[in-house]
Amino acid sequence: MSLKAEWIAVAWGRSMVRAWAMNDGEVIAQAQSDAGPACLTAEAFEEALLALIFGWLSDAPTDVVICGMEGAPQGWVDVRYGAVPCPALAEQLQALPCKDARLRVYLVPGMKQTQPADVMRGEETQMAGFLSQNQNWDGVICLPGLHTKWAHVSADEVVSFRSFMTGEMFKLLTQQSVLRHSVGEGWNAEAFQAGLDMTLSRPESLASELFSIRAGDLLLGTSTDVATARLSGLLLGAELAASRPYWLGQQIAVIGESSLAGVYAEALKTQGAWVEVVDGDAMTRAGLQAARAQVI
Amino acid sequence: MSLKAEWIAVAWGRSMVRAWAMNDGEVIAQAQSDAGPACLTAEAFEEALLALIFGWLSDAPTDVVICGMEGAPQGWVDVRYGAVPCPALAEQLQALPCKDARLRVYLVPGMKQTQPADVMRGEETQMAGFLSQNQNWDGVICLPGLHTKWAHVSADEVVSFRSFMTGEMFKLLTQQSVLRHSVGEGWNAEAFQAGLDMTLSRPESLASELFSIRAGDLLLGTSTDVATARLSGLLLGAELAASRPYWLGQQIAVIGESSLAGVYAEALKTQGAWVEVVDGDAMTRAGLQAARAQVI
Repeated sequence: MSLKAEWIAVAWGRSMVRAWAMNDGEVIAQAQSDAGPACLTAEAFEEALLALIFGWLSDAPTDVVICGMEGAPQGWVDVRYGAVPCPALAEQLQALPCKDARLRVYLVPGMKQTQPADVMRGEETQMAGFLSQNQNWDGVICLPGLHTKWAHVSADEVVSFRSFMTGEMFKLLTQQSVLRHSVGEGWNAEAFQAGLDMTLSRPESLASELFSIRAGDLLLGTSTDVATARLSGLLLGAELAASRPYWLGQQIAVIGESSLAGVYAEALKTQGAWVEVVDGDAMTRAGLQAARAQVI
Repeated sequence: MSLKAEWIAVAWGRSMVRAWAMNDGEVIAQAQSDAGPACLTAEAFEEALLALIFGWLSDAPTDVVICGMEGAPQGWVDVRYGAVPCPALAEQLQALPCKDARLRVYLVPGMKQTQPADVMRGEETQMAGFLSQNQNWDGVICLPGLHTKWAHVSADEVVSFRSFMTGEMFKLLTQQSVLRHSVGEGWNAEAFQAGLDMTLSRPESLASELFSIRAGDLLLGTSTDVATARLSGLLLGAELAASRPYWLGQQIAVIGESSLAGVYAEALKTQGAWVEVVDGDAMTRAGLQAARAQVI
């Protein structure tokens, strides 16, 4: 038996594409591949998309609603952004031309901010999903990832947002820098908290504390668990110090993959913040559904 | 004609080895190779060293004095450190066993600090060189590089020091992160200053300002010159904010390669600091000469 989708939800990330076959509001199948923005020419895009979802298509055209695709080249896609302050789904869906007649593909426009300059593609859809399920919600949404976003939401609009490269810095430092010799897969809650406290209270100390992780290994034989958790705490503390104007005294929704969102939520709770954690994939699908409702 | 060295000075860095044939206090020849710490087994070490300096050796043993070698494995070399507070050359030179009878090799011990944990290997030699030429010098020495060191010197001792990963962060961010799409080889003095001022006054802003470099490129078409200089300014400002307890109100010597040392010196001067720039290679040789004087 092959499942036919009523419509298809797609999250096209920096290094991975994930697709869900939707029917009557439910996920009936899902698939993923590691096609990243590198493959985003018109031909390669359609090929990668079809490889993932062809089993769910019927002869009649099927709606495919995509968010993300930050690598989509200008010219092929007219890269459109809503400009804050605006609703999470401010701009019309963009139709993407496809050769295969079974595909009717739409892209959710991203969101931009002029001052300070900032962009997002994908997270606006997760926010739209969350706000579609939480009417009249005011507060701050945190979307952790390679480039974590913090957004201020009020009166059904995204008022402002900022991106933080914390996730990418952690990846580079643990995989490419001199610290790679001193970190590992493990965790130590106390070391995480100590790192967090250090940069939350003295954010400038990040610059000097990083190398101390290496020196602690060389001189004191600090364990990789402690080193990894401390590095994570130092980087997140620096982000929370910088994003304090966003989260202080606000209700906060952290939307994302559960383990990373959990780390953010725990860190925020130590600062007395009111936090709920919301599943990122569910919000992506809800946002894509809300976006599709604009065109059907 | 082949030149014979009275002794040989060697700086063994993380990615490069440089050697100078010395005679009567003068450099009579120099050579370099890209042998890094990866090759530091006893056999590979001697091979890489000989390849560089064999032309300068006579039949009688020649002193070869080396600083750096932070990758030298424990066991083969008993990795020794002076513990601050101590003179720049606190520990005896370590003799390194060699098979070739023409070599009499010595390693300058590094320097360590227990609290906060920190280490250096190589920079202590440059400081020793500087202090050998500046009697009774009190102040702060800055040694820019992949892991920049700041050291407080008083009464002919290094009182304390800290390392900053600014150079490595700049390298990773410009070569490996999403910012690599937005930076280049050029420079813009105004953008450097603006970045510097931003993180010097608000060090926590580093976390959010980094991604704005990418967004500024995407939304406003910011030039690579501006992006590169701003990134450099943001990272150096964060370092200067963290190292302020070192340099504020002190006389400062910046020891290093001229262009990088110049950037540090210019940044410090904008903060009203009294700075002199000193050539790093010359200080390395002077320090190795002072170290050799301890054993001959």
